[in-house]
Amino acid sequence: MVDIIHRVGIAASANEVYNALTTNVGLAKWWTNDTSGAVNVGSIIKFRFGGDGPDFEVVELQPDSIVRWRHSGEMPVPWMGTEVSFHLTRGKNQTYVLFSHFNWKEPSDFMGHCSTKWAVFLLSLKEAIEKGVGKPYPDDFHIDHDE
Amino acid sequence: MVDIIHRVGIAASANEVYNALTTNVGLAKWWTNDTSGAVNVGSIIKFRFGGDGPDFEVVELQPDSIVRWRHSGEMPVPWMGTEVSFHLTRGKNQTYVLFSHFNWKEPSDFMGHCSTKWAVFLLSLKEAIEKGVGKPYPDDFHIDHDE
Repeated sequence: MVDIIHRVGIAASANEVYNALTTNVGLAKWWTNDTSGAVNVGSIIKFRFGGDGPDFEVVELQPDSIVRWRHSGEMPVPWMGTEVSFHLTRGKNQTYVLFSHFNWKEPSDFMGHCSTKWAVFLLSLKEAIEKGVGKPYPDDFHIDHDE
Repeated sequence: MVDIIHRVGIAASANEVYNALTTNVGLAKWWTNDTSGAVNVGSIIKFRFGGDGPDFEVVELQPDSIVRWRHSGEMPVPWMGTEVSFHLTRGKNQTYVLFSHFNWKEPSDFMGHCSTKWAVFLLSLKEAIEKGVGKPYPDDFHIDHDE
């Protein structure tokens, strides 16, 4: 199994970051503007990118601390069996977000693409909270010339 | 062992990307402006960030295709025993860079930080080549409030 790991520090309370990870309005400000279904543990969140996109089941919510999702559905195929987690911890003047997209079966070009793209979206999360404007799809930063 | 993997696509020839990864002038445009020692296989490249920074020995150079470095020295400690590779492949209208910083002993907060920061620097590489201006240290994009 291989994992993607990232970490950013956001100048905001853990509660502000937690809200951006657990509500449709918050998620729509940094990953994709077409987000629905985020309610509580057991919810299926539908992230759509111009029509299609992945579903994730919310499997753990610890207020202001842990958010964990399990990939649900059949696309993209390499994401089947993977999970995503966000661990929030307080630091000086910031909340750290330790992100992981884990349980990939193998490293690949696509995994490399997703790793870089997750970094871009986590920086979008940071800017959405700190500056009020993130770069969710379809305004996301392009990391290659296929997108 | 755990690895960091990223992938970007740059609108340039493989040779232009290769030059940005194998010359002091090229490296100084996207990672740190204080880069010296890059010559050929066996060279020790010194990357400095305001005084200190890591050394890497160049262990493989395949023109327009593969660049591989082995960490050399004692800092940062979690980098001891790690290697960095860049694999270049041609795609439609672009050169893909598959980047890996591999052989980490364990995942950690610091590894998460480095993974996100490598993404930022690879996007700096992309902009340095495509637009003529990257964001090497000390003009690098900050991903937390410790930097």
